[in-house]
Amino acid sequence: MIGIGLLGYGTVGQGLYKIVSERRDQLSYILSDEMEVLRVLVRDLDKKRDVEIDKDKLTLDFERILDDSNISIIVEVTGDLEKGYNYIRRALEKGKHVVTANKAIVSAYFEELSTLASNKGVYFLYEASVGGGIPLIKPLKDIISFNEVSSIEGILNGTCNFILTKMTEEGLSYQDVLKEAQRLGYAEEDPSSDVEGMDTLRKLRILSTLGFGGVITEDDILCDGIENISDLDIKLLKGKNRVVKLIASTYAFADGYCSIVQPRAVEVGSYFANVNLAFNSIGIRGNYIGDLKLFGSGAGMLPTANAVLTDCIDVVLKNQNLETPLRGKGLKNNNKEIFGRYYIRLDSGTEEAFEDVIIEKLHEEPLCFLTREIRLMDLLDKIASYEEGAYSIIGL
Amino acid sequence: MIGIGLLGYGTVGQGLYKIVSERRDQLSYILSDEMEVLRVLVRDLDKKRDVEIDKDKLTLDFERILDDSNISIIVEVTGDLEKGYNYIRRALEKGKHVVTANKAIVSAYFEELSTLASNKGVYFLYEASVGGGIPLIKPLKDIISFNEVSSIEGILNGTCNFILTKMTEEGLSYQDVLKEAQRLGYAEEDPSSDVEGMDTLRKLRILSTLGFGGVITEDDILCDGIENISDLDIKLLKGKNRVVKLIASTYAFADGYCSIVQPRAVEVGSYFANVNLAFNSIGIRGNYIGDLKLFGSGAGMLPTANAVLTDCIDVVLKNQNLETPLRGKGLKNNNKEIFGRYYIRLDSGTEEAFEDVIIEKLHEEPLCFLTREIRLMDLLDKIASYEEGAYSIIGL
Repeated sequence: MIGIGLLGYGTVGQGLYKIVSERRDQLSYILSDEMEVLRVLVRDLDKKRDVEIDKDKLTLDFERILDDSNISIIVEVTGDLEKGYNYIRRALEKGKHVVTANKAIVSAYFEELSTLASNKGVYFLYEASVGGGIPLIKPLKDIISFNEVSSIEGILNGTCNFILTKMTEEGLSYQDVLKEAQRLGYAEEDPSSDVEGMDTLRKLRILSTLGFGGVITEDDILCDGIENISDLDIKLLKGKNRVVKLIASTYAFADGYCSIVQPRAVEVGSYFANVNLAFNSIGIRGNYIGDLKLFGSGAGMLPTANAVLTDCIDVVLKNQNLETPLRGKGLKNNNKEIFGRYYIRLDSGTEEAFEDVIIEKLHEEPLCFLTREIRLMDLLDKIASYEEGAYSIIGL
Repeated sequence: MIGIGLLGYGTVGQGLYKIVSERRDQLSYILSDEMEVLRVLVRDLDKKRDVEIDKDKLTLDFERILDDSNISIIVEVTGDLEKGYNYIRRALEKGKHVVTANKAIVSAYFEELSTLASNKGVYFLYEASVGGGIPLIKPLKDIISFNEVSSIEGILNGTCNFILTKMTEEGLSYQDVLKEAQRLGYAEEDPSSDVEGMDTLRKLRILSTLGFGGVITEDDILCDGIENISDLDIKLLKGKNRVVKLIASTYAFADGYCSIVQPRAVEVGSYFANVNLAFNSIGIRGNYIGDLKLFGSGAGMLPTANAVLTDCIDVVLKNQNLETPLRGKGLKNNNKEIFGRYYIRLDSGTEEAFEDVIIEKLHEEPLCFLTREIRLMDLLDKIASYEEGAYSIIGL
């Protein structure tokens, strides 16, 4: 019997329990053994849940899961950074395999937990942490085994993409769409980690560190979110045949790499322009594999639980390498060299200060314009010097 | 030392040799052992090749490869159906692992070779046989381990997609574009297996048999190619905001499935409309994973060799299951129930015979029209009865 200890019984945890219950026979066939969720760590034993579970399985005490010798795989889906990290660390130290969907933990402790698992000879898998149901981490591990990856880019946050899609299609304001997204469950009550770009940044940190074979931390990534984007921005760019998306990208540049999360206005008809609503998509370029793009459900109960269970199956069947996939390449961050053309909106700015960068003015008050090609750092300096109100910067 | 015996030194064989040579150190690190191509079966020892190889490695004699105890993995990339099949069968019988890029062999002998490998406890892997560089077979195997797949559809042939893209973008005739494609190396001198849809059909047979968990043979798939599509067809459908693509699809229908390769006019802006030139893309829908789409290089030396080498690494690291992924579900073919709306061109047909199905006439001579919703079999019967010239049928 393969015993699973589940930490957290929120959306993903319930999804996993549901699938394991529904697919009992199929799983037994593939695994040549029974798989069972033996215990579930919760914070409230009596809370009503959508996916019903035998109350005897619930516990408030992590130690009961850690000390249960029948539990060989710990699935961490708490959504809590520090608690979750401690659970994972202790589980690995005790020689249990760990599968997590928690991108914040993977991002914050990627090297430490990967090394710990490798040293202990157990699995630490996190397919569900990026791209939800899209098979991404496992193909990426295959790709990096002999490709040089030169770029990774994607739409990695369903909440932002839902909001931007609705703003584009319905001409509504950011605030109105955010409220609708919250009502529909596409955005959290506190949406800051999504709309400010942190969630996207963490996912990019994970993909980049794997793909580029060296440490790229959260601090190595420039980050802007979507919370300053106005309906006017969307409308003016629509007039230029472009749609706004929050794009994460890391790419080889000069003798190093650049890594950035930023709103970008991509041309209508281009690949990312057609990734809408809560869908995610990731592009990977390698020297042998060429251009690869993956598209699918970036979140949601069943797609995310699907990824978690796929990891659990790989643990049982030993279908992935036990050695850490992280490499120790020294990488040079060239973010100060990032340059491009931009759309800018300045809520209280004056045209004079920006005369040397404007190539096309799109609106008077607030001042909205397109820039010539310019280093992003120079542009940010200029805005810091001359703009006192809100503004938006959108890459072209 | 991991010894590889390579059968065939065409495009894919040379690509594999190139990568293994270039990535010697990286492969040694991952595999904890040296990987080397020890012998290569060719038909001509003296032929000039793009990727140079030590002549001592070349042999005209398969037995020398089969009998070499240092060779544990046979990579079959001959492009020959019957010879290749015999090589693979004998290699498996001898207890050697086999990796192939040859979709014709996998399609023709899928069940037999999968069972043989499984019985012998060796690997039979074929990632490169469908979708070239796109990681597809391995993710699909993961998906089917507990999902119910309800549809697989895709653009699976780069030659057809290149021709259709050029016809659409440049308004040229099929014959003119075919000649250009041949000149550029995107089409074979004898393009029939590509343009008549056989290559696409074989790939669909492989994906469908895996995805639907039962035997779906080449004979279970309706097939039409692109060789009857005229520039007029493309132009008239463009006027309806549609572009023509050769789409392979198998989908659950009623108490069974339908499986068909057919030209389809998809709406501009829809997903497959944006898959252009020699790119491939595959969509898979599963009950848990949701909608997944994969896009990338469907052919070419390096992407295909990338897939072959990924399989070889999985053989060495035992990162896939040895048991056959094929399941024995009884599946009912419902192709006779396929229905839809169609665009029809009849080079010598008369309007009267088709009056009851026409909902919009687009052209007089030749007669081109859109149909109401109709069973495809009824439409084909009608055309067989009333049309003596060439015609095209394009799904909407």
